[in-house]
Amino acid sequence: MKIALMMENSQAGKNATVLNELNNVVLPQGDSVFNVGMSDENDHHLTYIHLGIMASILINSKAVDFIVAGCGTGQGAMMSLNLHPGIVCGYCLDPSDAFLFNQINNGNALALAFAKGFGWGAELNVRYIFEKAFLTGERGNGYPLERAEPQQRNAVILNDVKAAVLKSDYLETLKSMDQTLVKTAVSGKRFQECLFDNSQNDEINAYVKSLLVEK
Amino acid sequence: MKIALMMENSQAGKNATVLNELNNVVLPQGDSVFNVGMSDENDHHLTYIHLGIMASILINSKAVDFIVAGCGTGQGAMMSLNLHPGIVCGYCLDPSDAFLFNQINNGNALALAFAKGFGWGAELNVRYIFEKAFLTGERGNGYPLERAEPQQRNAVILNDVKAAVLKSDYLETLKSMDQTLVKTAVSGKRFQECLFDNSQNDEINAYVKSLLVEK
Amino acid sequence: MKIALMMENSQAGKNATVLNELNNVVLPQGDSVFNVGMSDENDHHLTYIHLGIMASILINSKAVDFIVAGCGTGQGAMMSLNLHPGIVCGYCLDPSDAFLFNQINNGNALALAFAKGFGWGAELNVRYIFEKAFLTGERGNGYPLERAEPQQRNAVILNDVKAAVLKSDYLETLKSMDQTLVKTAVSGKRFQECLFDNSQNDEINAYVKSLLVEK
Amino acid sequence: MKIALMMENSQAGKNATVLNELNNVVLPQGDSVFNVGMSDENDHHLTYIHLGIMASILINSKAVDFIVAGCGTGQGAMMSLNLHPGIVCGYCLDPSDAFLFNQINNGNALALAFAKGFGWGAELNVRYIFEKAFLTGERGNGYPLERAEPQQRNAVILNDVKAAVLKSDYLETLKSMDQTLVKTAVSGKRFQECLFDNSQNDEINAYVKSLLVEK
Repeated sequence: MKIALMMENSQAGKNATVLNELNNVVLPQGDSVFNVGMSDENDHHLTYIHLGIMASILINSKAVDFIVAGCGTGQGAMMSLNLHPGIVCGYCLDPSDAFLFNQINNGNALALAFAKGFGWGAELNVRYIFEKAFLTGERGNGYPLERAEPQQRNAVILNDVKAAVLKSDYLETLKSMDQTLVKTAVSGKRFQECLFDNSQNDEINAYVKSLLVEK
Repeated sequence: MKIALMMENSQAGKNATVLNELNNVVLPQGDSVFNVGMSDENDHHLTYIHLGIMASILINSKAVDFIVAGCGTGQGAMMSLNLHPGIVCGYCLDPSDAFLFNQINNGNALALAFAKGFGWGAELNVRYIFEKAFLTGERGNGYPLERAEPQQRNAVILNDVKAAVLKSDYLETLKSMDQTLVKTAVSGKRFQECLFDNSQNDEINAYVKSLLVEK
Repeated sequence: MKIALMMENSQAGKNATVLNELNNVVLPQGDSVFNVGMSDENDHHLTYIHLGIMASILINSKAVDFIVAGCGTGQGAMMSLNLHPGIVCGYCLDPSDAFLFNQINNGNALALAFAKGFGWGAELNVRYIFEKAFLTGERGNGYPLERAEPQQRNAVILNDVKAAVLKSDYLETLKSMDQTLVKTAVSGKRFQECLFDNSQNDEINAYVKSLLVEK
Repeated sequence: MKIALMMENSQAGKNATVLNELNNVVLPQGDSVFNVGMSDENDHHLTYIHLGIMASILINSKAVDFIVAGCGTGQGAMMSLNLHPGIVCGYCLDPSDAFLFNQINNGNALALAFAKGFGWGAELNVRYIFEKAFLTGERGNGYPLERAEPQQRNAVILNDVKAAVLKSDYLETLKSMDQTLVKTAVSGKRFQECLFDNSQNDEINAYVKSLLVEK
């Protein structure tokens, strides 16, 4: 699985810690990790708004399969990612959140709180969250198993409703928003590498490249 | 303030408890509470998908000012409500979540977990959440106060991005989705009373009424 | 490692679930589990007071190496176990509590909350707690490692202070308290089997047997 | 009510914040607050072991009515305080812990975690904990009310068992432990003021003074 980690300005100083935990948990099973947000406090400035746009580009282009995002409380990241087509982002504070969200909601993103509740030893909780998010096998099986049917049905309906209320073309949604936001969202070198090396959507690539040239 | 409480099938048995706590906290300061979801396990069957639609109708018609929703983990309700135009729904597990979401994200809905973590004595936590959600004065002031400016700016940008990716007309979003979902969402007597008594939008009322007739 | 699980009346109905999680986590690595408290609501009635006495007998006789106890909030069990000589009981709500308590405080007992916060899906949290309590290798190494020295020193001093304030002979402490409590504490068949099959202290066995005869 | 706050070396830097929240919550209702532990990182060095001794002196001399203590995880403080005669110390991570411990266990001390889980905004959680610990009226009434009888009975039995296992004279327990620990525990000026201004036990005062002279 290809996993992108993206962190914004308020908690950028914790990126090395979180990335280290993610790598330690998932690299041994052959997953790839792309650290596409801020890597420290001096990196190019991103907010949770940008994280949502970045996530939408990486998921809709199929450049990655899963997003780990977050902000201070995680609420901004959670809402920002969920705005966009194709993103189903849970909010995750403890390891069982990660497992249950995978089994019940079967999403493709998690928003974590990297400041609230993130005290001493919080790297342990992050590690355990990643273990239950990424090392527990198949997703979307429901929990408990006998509740799988309605849980899976509701997950599908959620996607249908989302598709219904959104503009119908992904690139149209991207072009409809303030383009200075999108330009900043795609301005990172690591983001661009992740996208252009892995994207399966030429149109999205072309549009992102057009923004980079402009800039 | 007008506050709607909406609960779905999996936790309908807890509605009386949650409603009681909400009433006890907010009625003394003159807020109104509308219990528009399931009131017990025998009530008409709603899922978190319906809660999102119901919330969107009540908020976009200005029938209510704030929504308290939830489901088993709260994740489904959180995502479902956030799909819709005009809803900014936080995820709330403890009293400081409620306060911080109000101050930083300044939303109009909270999704609670009514099963996960909801053990013995959970009515106390629910009460304390409502106290910090509804009895702490002005919202949107930022926390801490000196961070108000970027927090308020990001809250506005979030709304702008949401407006950009969604279909431009609220009723169009409502009409675009599977109408059997919408019909079920509006089928409750208490929901209808809340809407028709308080709505400030005749178009929404008319559309909902047209669905009721059809049915 | 020999691990005793002990639950009291208020949460006896959850014993099967908790025992199942404990067995699934530790049996594969060769640990033994003794379910010495109430096994269901109809079992002989124990309170958190009895759990403390039971734990003290099993630990001081070296019948077991570690105790998993609990009550509704876990506070009664935590305090009750900590009264007794030789018991160092942590309070554990999440997986990192279990790991940190092992590394920093290096105790021999954990008190869990089996009602407060114990909602739907709580068996997952219990499982993850057991994983971090019992499957993470050597204990007492400090966390982080560079803090090991003062943490280990304080753990030793805590034991010294406890020994200083308590009556000097273990059996004397047992005989000093209301003997009807002790008799009830030792009245369970599974408790007696665990003790008499594994105890390394004949004096304690003899005393417990004398109480059983009396009764 | 007279409330002592005591913090140790690892989290001394947070003393001003915690003290401020405690003062803001309880001073308006006429309680007194004594900040008897470390006030910052340069203050005389105390560990959680010392906090237990300090708490025992202040409670057994009736200099104060209630202790708020803590350490990094809170586990060391919780265990250290609970060692001593007359201290009934709960472990408190959220506001409902505080309320439930007061009603069910009716203790006289709370241990908080000032590092683990203590992230951004944690001062809010501390404030809410103090509100529910100190502003909710009478204690020891049980929760729910119909469970008062067994809860109150168990609280009494816990004290009886503790008294039975401990040396029978308070000063004897104090004199039995390593006296360098006690000397350090009583070395603070604010601690001494709190004790000598409020103690109702001349023997304890005399003993503490004898240690100060020696030193």
